[in-house]
Amino acid sequence: MENSSKQWRFEGNKRLNSASAISVRGVLDLVIGNLSTDDPRPTIPLGNGDPSQFACFRTSTTAEEAIVDAVHSAKYNGYAPTVGVLSARRAIANYLNRDLPYKLSADDIYVTSGCLQAIEVALAAINRPGANILLPRPGFTFYESRAAYEHLQVRHFDLLPDRGWEVDVDAIEDLADDNTVAIVIINPGNPCGSVYSYDHLKMVAETARKLGILVIADEVYGHLTFGSTPFVPMGIFGSIVPVLSLGSISKRWVVPGWRLGWLVTSDPNGILQKSGIVESITGFLNISTDPATFIQGAIPQILENTKDDFFSKVIVTLKEAADKCFDGIREVPCLTCPKKPEGSMFVMVRPYDLSAEDRGHVYIARYLHILQVKLNVSLLEDISDDLDFCMKLAKEESVIIVPAGMAFGMKNWLRITFACEISALEDGLRRIKAFHQRHVRKQ
Amino acid sequence: MENSSKQWRFEGNKRLNSASAISVRGVLDLVIGNLSTDDPRPTIPLGNGDPSQFACFRTSTTAEEAIVDAVHSAKYNGYAPTVGVLSARRAIANYLNRDLPYKLSADDIYVTSGCLQAIEVALAAINRPGANILLPRPGFTFYESRAAYEHLQVRHFDLLPDRGWEVDVDAIEDLADDNTVAIVIINPGNPCGSVYSYDHLKMVAETARKLGILVIADEVYGHLTFGSTPFVPMGIFGSIVPVLSLGSISKRWVVPGWRLGWLVTSDPNGILQKSGIVESITGFLNISTDPATFIQGAIPQILENTKDDFFSKVIVTLKEAADKCFDGIREVPCLTCPKKPEGSMFVMVRPYDLSAEDRGHVYIARYLHILQVKLNVSLLEDISDDLDFCMKLAKEESVIIVPAGMAFGMKNWLRITFACEISALEDGLRRIKAFHQRHVRKQ
Ligand SMILES: Cc1ncc(COP(=O)(O)O)c(C=O)c1O
Ligand SMILES: Cc1ncc(COP(=O)(O)O)c(C=O)c1O
Repeated sequence: MENSSKQWRFEGNKRLNSASAISVRGVLDLVIGNLSTDDPRPTIPLGNGDPSQFACFRTSTTAEEAIVDAVHSAKYNGYAPTVGVLSARRAIANYLNRDLPYKLSADDIYVTSGCLQAIEVALAAINRPGANILLPRPGFTFYESRAAYEHLQVRHFDLLPDRGWEVDVDAIEDLADDNTVAIVIINPGNPCGSVYSYDHLKMVAETARKLGILVIADEVYGHLTFGSTPFVPMGIFGSIVPVLSLGSISKRWVVPGWRLGWLVTSDPNGILQKSGIVESITGFLNISTDPATFIQGAIPQILENTKDDFFSKVIVTLKEAADKCFDGIREVPCLTCPKKPEGSMFVMVRPYDLSAEDRGHVYIARYLHILQVKLNVSLLEDISDDLDFCMKLAKEESVIIVPAGMAFGMKNWLRITFACEISALEDGLRRIKAFHQRHVRKQ
Repeated sequence: MENSSKQWRFEGNKRLNSASAISVRGVLDLVIGNLSTDDPRPTIPLGNGDPSQFACFRTSTTAEEAIVDAVHSAKYNGYAPTVGVLSARRAIANYLNRDLPYKLSADDIYVTSGCLQAIEVALAAINRPGANILLPRPGFTFYESRAAYEHLQVRHFDLLPDRGWEVDVDAIEDLADDNTVAIVIINPGNPCGSVYSYDHLKMVAETARKLGILVIADEVYGHLTFGSTPFVPMGIFGSIVPVLSLGSISKRWVVPGWRLGWLVTSDPNGILQKSGIVESITGFLNISTDPATFIQGAIPQILENTKDDFFSKVIVTLKEAADKCFDGIREVPCLTCPKKPEGSMFVMVRPYDLSAEDRGHVYIARYLHILQVKLNVSLLEDISDDLDFCMKLAKEESVIIVPAGMAFGMKNWLRITFACEISALEDGLRRIKAFHQRHVRKQ
């Protein structure tokens, strides 16, 4: 081919490649890419936190019909305002106002393509030359990816396992400097499943105020709490410190594929307006794509009319799956998940054989549909680490789980999502057991 | 308020603000923001190129039912692969293959949130430190905005009005240097409505090849041509030069709010793979939001089953509106639009009283639903320029049109979109006439 000798001037964007190297989705795609095409059995996806593909987690008919109505109305086929459809902004304000001591108006709401785009907007809007941002460790790596893409520096603060994964507030003051502009709080937490108390959140707000930085509150799991600690939105403390609250319908309505989220200025004192952050938010939205207009058009019906029945059914189903998963993992010697799920729908997992290196990453996964599992490779003959385990498991057994080393920096941990059909989960656990038996080191 | 004395460390992102300052959507939002809330009459939106809000441009029932089926199937509520749903990628490849001498596979297709996100992906993927890109003038300012946001340098080449807005190919060779990585071609063109011939596109491809740069072919208006020149996709020349082809269902199906588009590697020699561009494309998609999964799920049905009847009805309706609009504008002395729409559905507009400053911007709007109109402010008493005209027209008459000075650098031009219900268009034209009479300079 004559083209092979031709010199071209273009090349890939290296910054982009390294930014995306740390994404969970990228790691998952790698594992999924290793699936065998010969296996006649269905693939068991215990990898991504996405229960929506299973009939038992089907979203409410209210939500589905809201979409169908919006499409049939033909009123939402056109471009939306870049900040979002007004009726959707109003409905989201009303939905959030149920939990706030002051009232958000539609002007405080920016409709986004899922919480992911809300993260894109927030990080872009606060960025300036030399700025840095404080991110939780462990956290949600999309923040690290977007920050790398944006040339926004990252400083990590630890979540403290012995204090229910609370923020290490003292450390934050040492970490911040004059170029620190914001701190990210994920509550309820991914991947730890922590739910912060009113008092803890208030302390975070006061610390941020002292430092003069704003709070980005990722509340995509808002209301998905089942323990003794109720969900408290960070926006409650909006008069202590300006808060950018991020959320979506992805988790609570089990429709992450609908790509509908929001970014909210929870800031009754108007500081975000004065400091130019609001202008930058609208600036970013002007030069970005939007969520589908008819999904925005369906939002009032979805937020106002979904029945409590729907929400509680989801929780009961998750509880059953959590128990099954825990019991199944216990039968696989190379995997450790030592603590039975506790009352509140959360699953406690604590490895018993931690090396010193791992100890920094001790982990309690209390989030409602994720189990963090420790892998003991010394019991296996031909598996070198968590990634190798997941790649071979995909190829040989068509079971997808996430290698937490590459995805979260937790070497030789696995993240198993059990939010799936019970029969599929049981099938998947059987295959993991068979996989273990085939690879176990013979004495 | 005690907060007013508090020092905060964060501030808006200035780069973002300046990047978005040049967006048409931003300008439109400004004008829309000036609408009076007292006016009991309906707003007449002749501003954005979005006919979808009018019953006569309602999309095909095939497309609507495809969405409804996808929602009811509940198979598409979850996250999609970052590159897109496989069945959608296959269907888009088949759709595009009808016009190509070689076969695209599903792997060549990346599903995006409208053509806008395809532009985001393309510019991000080719960017590297110091790189520059060649953009058409006049063009679609979203490219300039995204390039500014990405720190990608821009060099403009002129489209030649006397040669049917063809690319000034000779100038391109002078413009490019070792840091030039790509050239953007919009065909059919916005805002000029030009449709390039096979020979002209081939010459562009050969020039790009000589320079060693890739072609970004924005074909969002693909197949919306009605003249003697048929639509030729740039991908036909993919073996001369690697092409990133961008498109969407927004225009042809009149559903810009559905946010479904594609980026395609039209590159039978695999050069984009070898040079790392493909890796950067997937890298960007890994750290970005996606189009709604169920809209992706509906794509095979939409692309395969939409009837030709639908496409031709749209064209007939546009032709009637074009004639009406042209005649109406002729009755308003301060506006000039001297050439009657010609056979092929395109509207030729050439101002007769150009100042030397304007001459650089002489304009023929042949695009099927846009009229470029020259404003003569000297005939008016209290209107300073195109922006002032549009702001006051919005406030007093609830009619929205785009000030082309701010939006496209064409001072004292107006862009009027006539793709709307005939009765609304007539109403809008009457209001513009009344506005003129109220503001006309008394002798
Ligand atoms: C902490 C966190 N934020 C944001 C998101 C993205 O949410 P969405 O699907 O609404 O974009 C996720 C998804 O898993 C998440 O875990
Ligand atoms: C040249 C050009 N490219 C891209 C787009 C955006 O298309 P989409 O609605 O598919 O994002 C437009 C919209 O007007 C356009 O004119």
